[in-house]
Amino acid sequence: MTEKYLTFLSDFGGNSSYPAQMKAVALSLANAHIIDITHDIQPHNVREGAFVLSCTAPLFPPGTVHVAVVDPGVGTSRRGLLITTKSQIFIGPDNGLLIPAAKKIGDMHVYQLTNEKMMRFPRSKTFDGRDVFTPTAAYVLNGLAFDEVGDKITDFLRLDFDSFQQSGSSIQGEIIYIDRFGNIITNIPKNVLTNPSLEDSMIEISFGKKSFKIPYVPSYGHVSLNQMLATIGSNDFFEISINQGNAAEKLKVTPGSPVSINFL
Amino acid sequence: MTEKYLTFLSDFGGNSSYPAQMKAVALSLANAHIIDITHDIQPHNVREGAFVLSCTAPLFPPGTVHVAVVDPGVGTSRRGLLITTKSQIFIGPDNGLLIPAAKKIGDMHVYQLTNEKMMRFPRSKTFDGRDVFTPTAAYVLNGLAFDEVGDKITDFLRLDFDSFQQSGSSIQGEIIYIDRFGNIITNIPKNVLTNPSLEDSMIEISFGKKSFKIPYVPSYGHVSLNQMLATIGSNDFFEISINQGNAAEKLKVTPGSPVSINFL
Amino acid sequence: MTEKYLTFLSDFGGNSSYPAQMKAVALSLANAHIIDITHDIQPHNVREGAFVLSCTAPLFPPGTVHVAVVDPGVGTSRRGLLITTKSQIFIGPDNGLLIPAAKKIGDMHVYQLTNEKMMRFPRSKTFDGRDVFTPTAAYVLNGLAFDEVGDKITDFLRLDFDSFQQSGSSIQGEIIYIDRFGNIITNIPKNVLTNPSLEDSMIEISFGKKSFKIPYVPSYGHVSLNQMLATIGSNDFFEISINQGNAAEKLKVTPGSPVSINFL
Repeated sequence: MTEKYLTFLSDFGGNSSYPAQMKAVALSLANAHIIDITHDIQPHNVREGAFVLSCTAPLFPPGTVHVAVVDPGVGTSRRGLLITTKSQIFIGPDNGLLIPAAKKIGDMHVYQLTNEKMMRFPRSKTFDGRDVFTPTAAYVLNGLAFDEVGDKITDFLRLDFDSFQQSGSSIQGEIIYIDRFGNIITNIPKNVLTNPSLEDSMIEISFGKKSFKIPYVPSYGHVSLNQMLATIGSNDFFEISINQGNAAEKLKVTPGSPVSINFL
Repeated sequence: MTEKYLTFLSDFGGNSSYPAQMKAVALSLANAHIIDITHDIQPHNVREGAFVLSCTAPLFPPGTVHVAVVDPGVGTSRRGLLITTKSQIFIGPDNGLLIPAAKKIGDMHVYQLTNEKMMRFPRSKTFDGRDVFTPTAAYVLNGLAFDEVGDKITDFLRLDFDSFQQSGSSIQGEIIYIDRFGNIITNIPKNVLTNPSLEDSMIEISFGKKSFKIPYVPSYGHVSLNQMLATIGSNDFFEISINQGNAAEKLKVTPGSPVSINFL
Repeated sequence: MTEKYLTFLSDFGGNSSYPAQMKAVALSLANAHIIDITHDIQPHNVREGAFVLSCTAPLFPPGTVHVAVVDPGVGTSRRGLLITTKSQIFIGPDNGLLIPAAKKIGDMHVYQLTNEKMMRFPRSKTFDGRDVFTPTAAYVLNGLAFDEVGDKITDFLRLDFDSFQQSGSSIQGEIIYIDRFGNIITNIPKNVLTNPSLEDSMIEISFGKKSFKIPYVPSYGHVSLNQMLATIGSNDFFEISINQGNAAEKLKVTPGSPVSINFL
């Protein structure tokens, strides 16, 4: 029997029991192999959730169903969505969260969740993750035709990370994510930077008024302990790090702030 | 083949490897589908663990076995329990932890764990979660008759959350739980409050000497950003929140403290 | 069908999505039952990772494959290893991380990972956990012959915790781990201390210049609330604790610092 994979991503906190409530509902309706992507998206930070989902979801086996819940608009008129793609299915709120991941895989079709038969009854007004998105995912895993959830729509909310700009030897981008190691991950993709001659050269990084000349190297251990460096991270974005140190803490930068690179 | 579900709840910390030790023991003895409820109950806070278990366990499929370990008395004479209910099984210490969940499901039968054949040998004196409760759970998943674990008892330790009081238009209750979003969850259940005319009216909330007049609304997004509100949370208890803010931090309240509501 | 167990241990952070990326890659290549040991090893702390792995891995069923990633040298010339033992398989960096666990199980054979067919392509220079260790684990779960990954070696990096010393009634050791409860776990194993007459006697503990006379008891609840105690922890090492308090916070000690015990 082929396994049916179901993932969860949310801002509920990995220490919370809300993810377990979603899993309990899923397992009551379908036989699923559940994997957590993360539940520690910063509360209400749809943009961070969208970035993490887009880096992680495409790695899963074809047919995987992803439930993503960063949902400050729960209980209001914001819509719920099911998005099919070339190989995977996304379910969550209509606030942009699902879009970068779905676009990355390609061949998106977007359905609005309106069929109340696919929702828990009675339905809480504050937890669509458990009462709408998860049961929909379970029915989809059980073979439900996609158009049973509701009508196809095209006016869903858009979100992207493509706001970097290149001019001569300089690129302006945005800090998009900071990981546990303090690695500062930008929205500047590897393919903008694939000049092999750049590796092991020096570059200039600026955060607002602060500027640093640092080596551009293949990985962290290519500089001395506690030295700053630039590299291409594992999700193929340009990142700034400190070898075995915490770059984000040292530089006091946060997601959303601008960054620029100058090739010297 | 029907899946056999086994859940874990503890105060070991989600970042600790103690939960993995329990899972390793379980999987060495039985084929089980394991789900974590949470491992981040506040250390030694039996009351919080009991509340989270009672909100979450009833959502799982019938036949699920729940191992819960918030157990400051481990290694002393406190007893271990197996509790059967109408649809699910609970295993853990005799300190009240399992009682609200089991009572909520109903038809409780309580057995004391005395059969050393169901325990690991040698047995650590500081980790009954791994050495007593988990192996018992594995044997139960494998079909062990309940009365093989030990005798039925009725003098187990009680615990409940029913200590709210109503007088006229006022209800006195207790803060029972604070989630990652800072939502302040009380022990005042939805059914005490189901006067539909109340929704979208103003109410007065008091924490000790501090009082606030706030709207009583269906969900968070029904008030402006950073505004305080009262609502019915997803586990059907009355809660106080700030839309996309952290109410518990702002009001500096903690679980266990009293709260009162006045309908204006 | 027998289940195939795959565990992960890392310093990526339980709140990060990097563990999910490894799981996605594993499940794309093999049908596996995945269990997290922990992802919250202190960043880059190979010694802590090695200790936790050695306490936890041996409890898993025979045939379990363990991927462990605490890997400050990723992307440099440090090698990757596959280690077979009497009953389990370990995959990770050649920095000592895997050695105490493998030695504890016994009958170690160490292979260097050089076969690029077992790695993801293209391979990131900063995430061998996802691109080298996990795919190797998946192929091993699928039945790959061990010597297909690369040649057998004997010059791998060693690491152990055996640096305690006994002289008369005194033992000098090291703090090896501090858990969520603040229990201070040393590298002094139970078997050095199994004089049954010692239990319930007083002992003297010294951290640097600070000394304490505390009872040596079977478990935490054998002393009053907030009293300090010494006991044998659940992984059979000597530990210092405070009943329902946090000993490490109170004593301001950290892993790596020396500890000595005197039997009075």
